[in-house]
Amino acid sequence: MSNESSPTSLSSDTEEVVDSRSETPIITNVNIMGTTFFRSNSGIKGEEALEGVDAAIYQLHKVAIKAYFQSYSIKTRIHIMRGEESHKNLTEMTSLVDALCDYGLKRREPFYAIGGGCVLDVCGLAASTYRRGVPFIRVPTTLLSLVDASVGVKNGVDYDCCLTETSYKNRLGTFYPPLAVVCWPGFVKSQDRRNLSNGCGEIVKLALVKSEEVFKLLEEYGGELISTGFGENGEEEIKAAAGRIIEKSIEIMLQELGPNLYEFELERPVDYGHTFSKVVEMAPGADIMHGEAVNVDGFFSAILSFGRGWIDETTLIRIYKVMKGLGLPVASDFMTEENCLKALEDAVEHRHGKQRIPLLKDCIGNSVCVSDITKEEVQGALNFLPYFLMAMGGN
Amino acid sequence: MSNESSPTSLSSDTEEVVDSRSETPIITNVNIMGTTFFRSNSGIKGEEALEGVDAAIYQLHKVAIKAYFQSYSIKTRIHIMRGEESHKNLTEMTSLVDALCDYGLKRREPFYAIGGGCVLDVCGLAASTYRRGVPFIRVPTTLLSLVDASVGVKNGVDYDCCLTETSYKNRLGTFYPPLAVVCWPGFVKSQDRRNLSNGCGEIVKLALVKSEEVFKLLEEYGGELISTGFGENGEEEIKAAAGRIIEKSIEIMLQELGPNLYEFELERPVDYGHTFSKVVEMAPGADIMHGEAVNVDGFFSAILSFGRGWIDETTLIRIYKVMKGLGLPVASDFMTEENCLKALEDAVEHRHGKQRIPLLKDCIGNSVCVSDITKEEVQGALNFLPYFLMAMGGN
Repeated sequence: MSNESSPTSLSSDTEEVVDSRSETPIITNVNIMGTTFFRSNSGIKGEEALEGVDAAIYQLHKVAIKAYFQSYSIKTRIHIMRGEESHKNLTEMTSLVDALCDYGLKRREPFYAIGGGCVLDVCGLAASTYRRGVPFIRVPTTLLSLVDASVGVKNGVDYDCCLTETSYKNRLGTFYPPLAVVCWPGFVKSQDRRNLSNGCGEIVKLALVKSEEVFKLLEEYGGELISTGFGENGEEEIKAAAGRIIEKSIEIMLQELGPNLYEFELERPVDYGHTFSKVVEMAPGADIMHGEAVNVDGFFSAILSFGRGWIDETTLIRIYKVMKGLGLPVASDFMTEENCLKALEDAVEHRHGKQRIPLLKDCIGNSVCVSDITKEEVQGALNFLPYFLMAMGGN
Repeated sequence: MSNESSPTSLSSDTEEVVDSRSETPIITNVNIMGTTFFRSNSGIKGEEALEGVDAAIYQLHKVAIKAYFQSYSIKTRIHIMRGEESHKNLTEMTSLVDALCDYGLKRREPFYAIGGGCVLDVCGLAASTYRRGVPFIRVPTTLLSLVDASVGVKNGVDYDCCLTETSYKNRLGTFYPPLAVVCWPGFVKSQDRRNLSNGCGEIVKLALVKSEEVFKLLEEYGGELISTGFGENGEEEIKAAAGRIIEKSIEIMLQELGPNLYEFELERPVDYGHTFSKVVEMAPGADIMHGEAVNVDGFFSAILSFGRGWIDETTLIRIYKVMKGLGLPVASDFMTEENCLKALEDAVEHRHGKQRIPLLKDCIGNSVCVSDITKEEVQGALNFLPYFLMAMGGN
């Protein structure tokens, strides 16, 4: 592997987005979940085999990761992590901390976090607390993390409270910037359809609140994006569309998060789809991924906007069709009245005393935050949903 | 209790130190370990009794804490914490997080951390990670925490690594400023002698590296400070001396920490006594408090300075006498060659590649950081120590 074909670095203190997609992927599997430490100066330790690691996963990535770091003359040790949502917790975090202690990572010595959003979040919290903060480099490997977790300074783990016997999403975390982010869309190539759709959940969200251009691209290329590994395996046209969507999504995230990195401002358009989704995601027994839950919430929020007369039926149907075209769910059995009202309460707690929920207004690409959503309004939207879905021919 | 007799607030963004000692302590016991939540605006919850709490401790502080918060019309809920060094860990932190979840603390809602350094450290880490950071107010209740943990933005917990089977001091923590610090020396009044001596460990350290004035006060009033509840139960003269020592100690800490809050500069005079002490503190079976360990390290470091010819024998003897006068240990069975060399290694890791150990130079109140301490130098100092102690009449 030459340096030319490897991912390029997106420094966290610049807004420049480098589209470095290449014909030659360095890693052919997508669900790479692992953290690679490297020593950037003297005192390099030899690579050591890890025990208790899924041999297949390790074997699959070993060659590519070794090649990448060897090209920079860096010897590495790999700590395999579990990247499922169910492992975004303190246990996974302390397992990484154990590995950092064992490695003897120095105070100013960076480590690489390579994986999807969950791995990046867990690594971010470990990086920010280990020795009160060591540098880390984010390498998002999924479509979702490429357009979402790659940008910004947030990390976190879910938390199971012993007293309330409730699971809380991202209840423990910090604001902690990575040293750099390495963005390489080639990772996305071999994600399966569900994972690609999941990533599109956050992209649809960004389109709805900030970019009619992205929405129109999703409208035009939706299903094809999913069937071509988000353009990577497709013709030039679809590839160009996918590239533009990723580029624009990251650009929007930088614009939205940049001036409000530490969330002193709690009314954020990017929180669209992130209110009811939390309860759905954390519901026991719910088999739903983050981007899917965001989409379910995003469609419900669109119905709330429609109920207020802020968007018309044509727009609502367009939104529905884009979501379905991308293979995303627009409803969930866990979107019960009880859960939705719980979500409103949680929002008030989390956004300090007000709901501050973004709803669509006037057109695709525009939103306003509201804090006056009532029980009746939620009931109305929940009642409307099945009739709408029936009219459209099912969920 | 009137407002006049209650502790005044030392805001974290000002360097003004308020000496608000009063004849009327609001709380007569010192080892108060607990966290008090309050709601600063509407939605006040009634106080609720906690189960599983040491009834004696809760009973002791209930009246005083209630009175304090009632004077501000704030209803509180108390979460009792364990303040011993052995409970400065993630378990104690998550126990507090459970209580915060159960209370439903909002994102911009502060809680009070009332206790010694360990409680303040655990609370600080919880505050900085709960919902990615909620405000908290530090109320130090021990001499040690009054002059040490009260200032600065650091928190942390010790960590037991499963892989290395080693305990690491402050391995997990953050830099996170409190909303405010409430300093009230009256708390110190009824600390027992050992705890007062322990607090003096950090004061001696500050005197050695930064203030001959404080050193001379300790020289003159040493034993009397310990026998009078650090001046609180003594005559005007000793009380004034104690007040000056506390004031000056906090002032030095503010001067030293203020320009280097996030420790971009790793050579810090306040790290004097904080290299070998860590290994001694974490040694299994060592019954030693933080200030005591700092003092053991501080005396060993003084011997290293003496060995380099940087301080003379008269000065070394003065230092020894001040330490003994304050009831502090100057040696420990755990200061073995093996542990000291381990501490040097750890220092190199923690201070990124160099020892950066402060040693005394030329006079009391002056230090320089060195990174060239050798095994032979450590051996020499360890061999010298018992002879010196014998000459002085024992440890």
